[in-house]
Amino acid sequence: MAHNFHYYSPTEVIFGRGAHQETGKYIKKYGGTKVLIVYGSERVFKNGLMDEITDSMKAEGLTFEFLGGVVPNPHLSKVYMGIGLGKRIGADFLLAVGGGSAIDTAKAVAYGLAEPEEDVWTLFEHTRTAKKCLPVASVLTIAAAGSETSMGAVITNEKTNEKRAYDDDLARPRFAVMNPEFTLSLPDYQTESGCADIMMHTMERYFTNGGNMELTDSIAEGLLRTVITNAKILHNDPQNYDARAEVMWAGSLAHNNLTGCGNDGGDFATHMLEHELGGMFDVTHGAGLAAVWPAWARYVYKDALPRFVRYAVNVMQVKPEGSDEEIAQKGICAMEEFYHAIGMPVNLRELGITPTEEQIHEMAVRCAKACGGSKGSAKLLHQKDMEEIYHMAR
Amino acid sequence: MAHNFHYYSPTEVIFGRGAHQETGKYIKKYGGTKVLIVYGSERVFKNGLMDEITDSMKAEGLTFEFLGGVVPNPHLSKVYMGIGLGKRIGADFLLAVGGGSAIDTAKAVAYGLAEPEEDVWTLFEHTRTAKKCLPVASVLTIAAAGSETSMGAVITNEKTNEKRAYDDDLARPRFAVMNPEFTLSLPDYQTESGCADIMMHTMERYFTNGGNMELTDSIAEGLLRTVITNAKILHNDPQNYDARAEVMWAGSLAHNNLTGCGNDGGDFATHMLEHELGGMFDVTHGAGLAAVWPAWARYVYKDALPRFVRYAVNVMQVKPEGSDEEIAQKGICAMEEFYHAIGMPVNLRELGITPTEEQIHEMAVRCAKACGGSKGSAKLLHQKDMEEIYHMAR
Repeated sequence: MAHNFHYYSPTEVIFGRGAHQETGKYIKKYGGTKVLIVYGSERVFKNGLMDEITDSMKAEGLTFEFLGGVVPNPHLSKVYMGIGLGKRIGADFLLAVGGGSAIDTAKAVAYGLAEPEEDVWTLFEHTRTAKKCLPVASVLTIAAAGSETSMGAVITNEKTNEKRAYDDDLARPRFAVMNPEFTLSLPDYQTESGCADIMMHTMERYFTNGGNMELTDSIAEGLLRTVITNAKILHNDPQNYDARAEVMWAGSLAHNNLTGCGNDGGDFATHMLEHELGGMFDVTHGAGLAAVWPAWARYVYKDALPRFVRYAVNVMQVKPEGSDEEIAQKGICAMEEFYHAIGMPVNLRELGITPTEEQIHEMAVRCAKACGGSKGSAKLLHQKDMEEIYHMAR
Repeated sequence: MAHNFHYYSPTEVIFGRGAHQETGKYIKKYGGTKVLIVYGSERVFKNGLMDEITDSMKAEGLTFEFLGGVVPNPHLSKVYMGIGLGKRIGADFLLAVGGGSAIDTAKAVAYGLAEPEEDVWTLFEHTRTAKKCLPVASVLTIAAAGSETSMGAVITNEKTNEKRAYDDDLARPRFAVMNPEFTLSLPDYQTESGCADIMMHTMERYFTNGGNMELTDSIAEGLLRTVITNAKILHNDPQNYDARAEVMWAGSLAHNNLTGCGNDGGDFATHMLEHELGGMFDVTHGAGLAAVWPAWARYVYKDALPRFVRYAVNVMQVKPEGSDEEIAQKGICAMEEFYHAIGMPVNLRELGITPTEEQIHEMAVRCAKACGGSKGSAKLLHQKDMEEIYHMAR
């Protein structure tokens, strides 16, 4: 069944070896002259990437300043710092060099600079919507978040432990430079967490009760199979360029909404549950998703049985034998085996956190509030459901 | 193997029931004020579509003029007529209401109006490149050409019988309104030719000898299976909205280059061979492709055997038994059976044309010239190969 949908993914993608050397050219094409470069890890200096990027910018006569030290689950304080720095240099373009944290920080700074009279956090509190945003682009070094082509940004207010998202087409990046070579040196845990994140961006759109388009399902299933195959390859052979390329491109397609066209908006409860973990315990996002998903799946699968059966057969290659319930359960088990095969956790203990009863209750309260009371398509979850899933995930 | 690639598909898609009522809003969003509306069939007036579109434009205070009567394999003379009309009304936006012919005409007129001192046909002769193009958008009523999101336009110079393409990001449509309801009344032959066209846009990118990305292959195979399934549904049940929606969205994704990311540029020999048929005999494009493909496939398959085997198994559901040659041949036969099942021809006779030896020679000469001497990735074809394929296709 085809729901009405809106699809907009204008980001120009420059993909492959040497792509980063064109960064300056594309910033100029999209009107940038004074660039604030946002990055996280110093790895981008050590491996020579940043030098080649800034060389390409100098060649185009662009000026730039750096905002470094962005951390995973990026902080609001860094966003404010970036807005201050951007004002001082009169920045008219944001370039993120890194993964989702750097890109999301760049998006938040871009909102802040475009409407300097407003507090940017109010966007993430959803008490207003943005009217403007400076242009943003990225040189991607981590395949995971999909922020390089998405409308979303997720920022953590580290004073209140709130991790919150804001979605708006205004912040869709102008271009994304993707050279898989710069993911070859990623720590294994980041590679694997990235694969889990990419899977989940697709699965959030796949597990619905409202009907999906067949074309969208077939793209989603193909993408998931591709990530599973190549995540396993990278677990044993991190230097495999082709596998890096497959995962990197999958990361973008998983979150530019291609895998959600014609569905009912998707489920996204697992993401909301993980956001509270990320806010309270600062876990790696993809690993947090992997740790929550099996509990979520076992809690909801009976309410969306045809989807879970289809997933088991078409993605996890479970033989279609036995009852639908058995097939669905085998699919969930196969997913856990896959996560273990690439070193990912399947519960909170394996993730390395042991929340107290009070913390679980607090996360469920916050999650329900952030969801406006309830969330989910496969099964609509309320606060008590969320609390139960956190318990099951321990 | 992942080749470097560039992916850019900025067209905003508004998909579903009622979508056409937003046309005026989106023209205004993209800066249009004086709109030249390009259409082919009067069907768009009879079914009330055009009235609802122009109502939405009046509501936004836009003015407009019509350029009607665009034919399949659209004519250069109509393009010149549109440029003249556009100049007179000071058009700043082109809206096509129809299928690929209307959209391609709109693109050509948009080029002509943006650079009025140049002859637009020189773009299609490839003796210059465009510097500018007016904004173009469409309300799609035929799922086939993919022009609603593509960079391409194909125009026929009816004086010289030359059907020629020009590709440039400048002409990528700003938005595409896709309401599958307006394809419900299409004549069966157009529906089926459209499905054949959509299949071929994907297959041109799939059949290569240079290596493709696994993710791209899986998307292509899923798309092809989806079109096969839904083309058969529509052959028996033309009023099926969901099947119309699947085919319509597939038409866009088949030709916005999503199914070519990371390949070697694709084959596209079948398209070039068909263009000469279309120029000389004015056949329906998709049907022409269907009539040429089996001969092309049998001529080249030994040179790209792994691809033809994969296609047979993953798309045409051939059992992987016997030699690779046998499997590949079964895949080609299965494709012919599919074309017959939806009323499409598999050779020139069934297409209703019987070219003479001289005409075949003439088409091969022109085709080779239009290709710059040779074309193809699955197998590189020269003029003598093209002539042989035309013979085999009779």
